[in-house]
Amino acid sequence: MALFITLEGGEGSGKTTVATSLADRARERGAEVVLTREPGGTPLGAAIRESLFRGDEPMGGWTEAFLFLADRAEHVERVIRPSLARGAVVICDRFADSTIAYQAYGRGLDLDLLQQLNRVATGGATPNLTLLLDVPVAIGLARTRQETFDRIGQETTDFHNRVYEGFGRLAIAEPDRIKSIDAAQPLDAVVAEAWELVAARLARIGFPGRG
Amino acid sequence: MALFITLEGGEGSGKTTVATSLADRARERGAEVVLTREPGGTPLGAAIRESLFRGDEPMGGWTEAFLFLADRAEHVERVIRPSLARGAVVICDRFADSTIAYQAYGRGLDLDLLQQLNRVATGGATPNLTLLLDVPVAIGLARTRQETFDRIGQETTDFHNRVYEGFGRLAIAEPDRIKSIDAAQPLDAVVAEAWELVAARLARIGFPGRG
Repeated sequence: MALFITLEGGEGSGKTTVATSLADRARERGAEVVLTREPGGTPLGAAIRESLFRGDEPMGGWTEAFLFLADRAEHVERVIRPSLARGAVVICDRFADSTIAYQAYGRGLDLDLLQQLNRVATGGATPNLTLLLDVPVAIGLARTRQETFDRIGQETTDFHNRVYEGFGRLAIAEPDRIKSIDAAQPLDAVVAEAWELVAARLARIGFPGRG
Repeated sequence: MALFITLEGGEGSGKTTVATSLADRARERGAEVVLTREPGGTPLGAAIRESLFRGDEPMGGWTEAFLFLADRAEHVERVIRPSLARGAVVICDRFADSTIAYQAYGRGLDLDLLQQLNRVATGGATPNLTLLLDVPVAIGLARTRQETFDRIGQETTDFHNRVYEGFGRLAIAEPDRIKSIDAAQPLDAVVAEAWELVAARLARIGFPGRG
């Protein structure tokens, strides 16, 4: 009955807007939807998010990684796992793949160790479907730089190129779970493509469309 | 020239008072002393400490562990390493051994993984001397329960017994670094014993006593 969907991608890929649209549509089909995000999906996570993104001071790579992992462990335990246990559809804006893309590929921290820590933090909770919103770095950054600034969004283009490469490698390694969507398209088209994938999964767990 | 001293031990062992006395006496000998603690030795750490100790809600073991590790990584990078680099004496109230005693022995999390994460968080910064203030659990808890309450201090006696065992095993494994002091004695006697060990180290780095 339950369904765990995550959205992943670089800066300015439209994840947050797409996640909101998917939640609305899934609710229209009658599903209980929990729309959440990392970091910041719990009270502790909100405090961690504030520490992670405020200020311009550089933060050590492992300091950052441990904060994201603390946020994830709390989020899985308090929100994701209980929601899935009662049969809800969980739609989460960023999850474990972001740690691999940003901290392992972007920051250059030990990939194997981060994978092990993801397993520990998630306790094995794995998305049924991950939508990777794939937008070229230059386009994504141009979008976000019109909006809000934060410490990670302000990293170098080289950093964001490494993150992009990381997401690409994850998608190649797990083609059944991770579906890439061309997010350079207009947002309506991105939402339509994402919804097609989600609707098919909803139909399988008892929420078919009306024809 | 530099010297890195940590104080470890269970609740109510007198670490904080002893650390303050040692700092005063080392300053009297002319050393630059940085007196600090974990968690909470940096602005980020102060926010983490607040999250760790406030409230009565149980926190997941790994959530807690990742928060302590984030605090440590930041603390080593911003405070401990720069202080040692300029030749200061760093006196730190709790450090990496507490993670092993509390999270591995107390909470039952994976010991090998936590040791690996301590290495990552400290970047290899290792105390020259660790004073383990050894007080029987019942006496230590009786002391703290007259004072402040916090989430970890309120754990079961079984938990504190496992922490005690953890510190004991660490002391056996590293007798050159970790020196146990009987902290059931009156505080003056504990300070005197601790100071004897610290004074010997200070003399070796050029701060001898006056005779």
